[in-house]
Amino acid sequence: MIDLSGLYAPVPTPFHEDERIAFDHFEANLQRWISQPLDGVVMPGSNSEIPYLTDEEKLHLWAACANVFQGSSKQWIAGTGVERTADTIHLTQEAARAGAIAALVLPPSYYKRAMTHEVLVRHYTSLADQSPIPILVYNIPAYTGIDFELKTLVQLAEHPDIMGMKDSSSNVVKMAALLKARPGFKVFAGTGSALLPYLSIGAVGGVMAVANIAAVPLRRILDAFQAGRLDEARQVQLSLVELNSAVTTRYGVPGLKYAMEQVGFYGGPPRLPLLRIDVEAQSVIDVLLEEAGLV
Amino acid sequence: MIDLSGLYAPVPTPFHEDERIAFDHFEANLQRWISQPLDGVVMPGSNSEIPYLTDEEKLHLWAACANVFQGSSKQWIAGTGVERTADTIHLTQEAARAGAIAALVLPPSYYKRAMTHEVLVRHYTSLADQSPIPILVYNIPAYTGIDFELKTLVQLAEHPDIMGMKDSSSNVVKMAALLKARPGFKVFAGTGSALLPYLSIGAVGGVMAVANIAAVPLRRILDAFQAGRLDEARQVQLSLVELNSAVTTRYGVPGLKYAMEQVGFYGGPPRLPLLRIDVEAQSVIDVLLEEAGLV
Amino acid sequence: MIDLSGLYAPVPTPFHEDERIAFDHFEANLQRWISQPLDGVVMPGSNSEIPYLTDEEKLHLWAACANVFQGSSKQWIAGTGVERTADTIHLTQEAARAGAIAALVLPPSYYKRAMTHEVLVRHYTSLADQSPIPILVYNIPAYTGIDFELKTLVQLAEHPDIMGMKDSSSNVVKMAALLKARPGFKVFAGTGSALLPYLSIGAVGGVMAVANIAAVPLRRILDAFQAGRLDEARQVQLSLVELNSAVTTRYGVPGLKYAMEQVGFYGGPPRLPLLRIDVEAQSVIDVLLEEAGLV
Amino acid sequence: MIDLSGLYAPVPTPFHEDERIAFDHFEANLQRWISQPLDGVVMPGSNSEIPYLTDEEKLHLWAACANVFQGSSKQWIAGTGVERTADTIHLTQEAARAGAIAALVLPPSYYKRAMTHEVLVRHYTSLADQSPIPILVYNIPAYTGIDFELKTLVQLAEHPDIMGMKDSSSNVVKMAALLKARPGFKVFAGTGSALLPYLSIGAVGGVMAVANIAAVPLRRILDAFQAGRLDEARQVQLSLVELNSAVTTRYGVPGLKYAMEQVGFYGGPPRLPLLRIDVEAQSVIDVLLEEAGLV
Repeated sequence: MIDLSGLYAPVPTPFHEDERIAFDHFEANLQRWISQPLDGVVMPGSNSEIPYLTDEEKLHLWAACANVFQGSSKQWIAGTGVERTADTIHLTQEAARAGAIAALVLPPSYYKRAMTHEVLVRHYTSLADQSPIPILVYNIPAYTGIDFELKTLVQLAEHPDIMGMKDSSSNVVKMAALLKARPGFKVFAGTGSALLPYLSIGAVGGVMAVANIAAVPLRRILDAFQAGRLDEARQVQLSLVELNSAVTTRYGVPGLKYAMEQVGFYGGPPRLPLLRIDVEAQSVIDVLLEEAGLV
Repeated sequence: MIDLSGLYAPVPTPFHEDERIAFDHFEANLQRWISQPLDGVVMPGSNSEIPYLTDEEKLHLWAACANVFQGSSKQWIAGTGVERTADTIHLTQEAARAGAIAALVLPPSYYKRAMTHEVLVRHYTSLADQSPIPILVYNIPAYTGIDFELKTLVQLAEHPDIMGMKDSSSNVVKMAALLKARPGFKVFAGTGSALLPYLSIGAVGGVMAVANIAAVPLRRILDAFQAGRLDEARQVQLSLVELNSAVTTRYGVPGLKYAMEQVGFYGGPPRLPLLRIDVEAQSVIDVLLEEAGLV
Repeated sequence: MIDLSGLYAPVPTPFHEDERIAFDHFEANLQRWISQPLDGVVMPGSNSEIPYLTDEEKLHLWAACANVFQGSSKQWIAGTGVERTADTIHLTQEAARAGAIAALVLPPSYYKRAMTHEVLVRHYTSLADQSPIPILVYNIPAYTGIDFELKTLVQLAEHPDIMGMKDSSSNVVKMAALLKARPGFKVFAGTGSALLPYLSIGAVGGVMAVANIAAVPLRRILDAFQAGRLDEARQVQLSLVELNSAVTTRYGVPGLKYAMEQVGFYGGPPRLPLLRIDVEAQSVIDVLLEEAGLV
Repeated sequence: MIDLSGLYAPVPTPFHEDERIAFDHFEANLQRWISQPLDGVVMPGSNSEIPYLTDEEKLHLWAACANVFQGSSKQWIAGTGVERTADTIHLTQEAARAGAIAALVLPPSYYKRAMTHEVLVRHYTSLADQSPIPILVYNIPAYTGIDFELKTLVQLAEHPDIMGMKDSSSNVVKMAALLKARPGFKVFAGTGSALLPYLSIGAVGGVMAVANIAAVPLRRILDAFQAGRLDEARQVQLSLVELNSAVTTRYGVPGLKYAMEQVGFYGGPPRLPLLRIDVEAQSVIDVLLEEAGLV
């Protein structure tokens, strides 16, 4: 099996003003990411306005990833989790066919009370059994309302084709327990501010919104940590926390899209009901980008 | 505008063992509901495995509702809320074209933090402006993670085409405040155990999973309340609480489908990841149906 | 055993500007409540700044209740729940000695995870076994973080000396299930806006902050409900919701104290860390009191 | 001002079978901790059954700490936070008089909605202004229901006598943001499993239940981290997570007391309503202690 690790950007989906996908801008953005110190991208992730995309649009976006990254050293991971088990399996198989190296899979979450340990284990096991590519579990309770129990993760980690997870809950205690129980499981930090703490307990990298615009300092954190230069790792980590917050919890996808525009990518509008950020939020992000030396 | 009130069943979607929709059974179920003391049905609602249905399947289910109810006194309300504003508008227009009398609309909920008062007001206003049929807001925080603020509901209720709401949070305090501020707003109880308390503060009826199997006692609650026979209303209300719990919070859609089988409807399996209920749960429901005099 | 029902005011503790208890004002307030259509008072309740009172202060406040109410038709219920079981038992015995007709008992709540069904059942059973007066369970999750499970309440209701509860969670669904299982249990609404819905499912009354200032309209709700005049009951109920919200969730104890001042009671300052309400909040309450015809 | 850092054990209060404090055992335990690689202890902390202790008992426990630690290199920190501001100030002054080096202060938490940014800032500022010893803020939302906002912590950290905090929420993202904004603030991990991640972002140590029984491996984590031996730090950290969980979230104070008995301290019973752990839980802890090399 492939051995995933490192830094991944969950990339936004660019839209024209009329909300159609701007495929030309998407390809240009991907070209730009090739020059960044990233290991690859995730499409679609939470930052990609995933619930506003049709399956057909996902296929087109994957084709673009495959096309642009061909011959480069970059990998792309597909986001394939939807509510129905059969649809999730189908979409994952399509992603494999398109060339994804792995699938990052949201849990079904509408019937929250029904998403018991048993139901989640069956869902992911059934998926992994029928997927041509490795599965990464995606835990993001702020969006799904589902927070995987430790015992569910421990059991899923036993499946040979469930190789790891992205954890956006920043629960270092649960992750430490998971890594104690399943030392080889590939844990990725789910937000840029948690990268260094996650590395300290054995995570292999991060899938982080802020990686879209700040791959260079994130790489510095990773390199400094691995070289034992902890002071440097900590200083760079702390320097990113406000910017990370601005493009995630504080201003969300519209904030990230605005920040991308400022550093040379195409950002563009979100799809409704999301709204562009206002002028005040723009000023906050302008300052943070400058402080981080990104503009 | 039409004047909605009374008892509605949010009807399950019947599936064959291979997970295809069983349209023949769906039509037979609808025929059976015609003979029940209901005002109509909602399709799809939360009990319809709404997140597992494609848009195309929804259109076919609506055609079946229109076909079976034609010429009857029953009405059908369409569930049309999806994540993207444009898709919600489109689907609502399709429902109107198919003959729905109103649309019951879930809020977008993936980006929970971004679903502010302003964003929700814009989303529903935009929808109501472009919908040929009246809109009912659907508040079900247990599934969406979104619990509408009072001020948002008060503002939405000012729109001439947003006529009411289904509240599954059973928050009598918030509903009392809403009905004080907007006396004509049509509030429906969202679960069978809350029907009488909701009527007491001015609700006009209920959209309740248990109505699929217990329309007769629910009608008795409504009739007794309106006639001022409060003891009778209370006794019937209390007699239903355990059964109501069993087919909603306790065993969910699979529990409801099992109960439907026992009282003469087609139930059938859920779509995965949902699982059929086990034998122990079946025994619980058997007892409750017998206690309620429904078998 | 006594048979509690009706309307109770959980009365605030009045303080001088230097935070000492103003016993003279407390007795004057009690005298004034005698002339109101209340069945009695609770001291201390959540509105009494209960966590800021010493046990010695509670004894003095109970002596004042006993003294002022002697010979009147009013009853007083003591709030006696503290964290430790032994202390709760001791305090309840003191309250009985002072003349309380019953005790309203908060659950231990610091070690939330440890407050399991078993622990709570043992705690309340041990208390009831050693209490000379009947016990009312007090469920107020907004303050304690403990929300009693249905099964715990059903089991506690079997004890001959646990006669009822105050439920401030306004969970009509759970209360309906409880009253189905234990028809004789005395359920009191815990907030004024829930009185009518609670009565509709069989509650016997309410213990409500707003009863301190609005006993007359609350009594009208109760009387109209019992006489089957549901429209009147509903209209009065809805007329109180905003005022109720202002003196509870919105402005808390300091809001209630301000409102009391406006209608002729002594209010006074709260103990720190609570702060008096500001001028804006005062204006809101002024308007609501006028709309409710209380000033 | 003193410069706190390192490893502290929040020590349990030992009781006799009749629930009286076992002062002789407490002093013997303290003697034993002197020989452990700890910087000191906290008394009372959450593990001390703090809500079951009277103020008088706290004074006696502090006298014991002062007595036993006199002449040793160990420090003791007093837990002094209660609900009322005046009481908290008084208790902190008493602790200072008894010889505490600092006070770890829980927030008032009963009136959760009223504990706004402004109220908390006033409370802690007023305390710090009148305290002879430095203040540490104690954030433990699982017990208090209060989770300090970043902006509140940032503001409190500006006060010259509020020198740091214990954070039991394990929120590395918030702590990173705090340490970016206030680099000199002394942050202590609040649970043993979070020690290494907290150190990675600049925390100065931990106040951890598991330190009562596992000071040696915790010290190894700290030493290895400071020496840049990250693999060793991580391995020791992961080896402790299950034991840490057992004596905190899983079995609570009674679990910790049992574990203490097994490694040579006096444990004894908790005060009611807490119950001793059962035989099954004992076996789990026995195994974990053996795996950790502590028995």
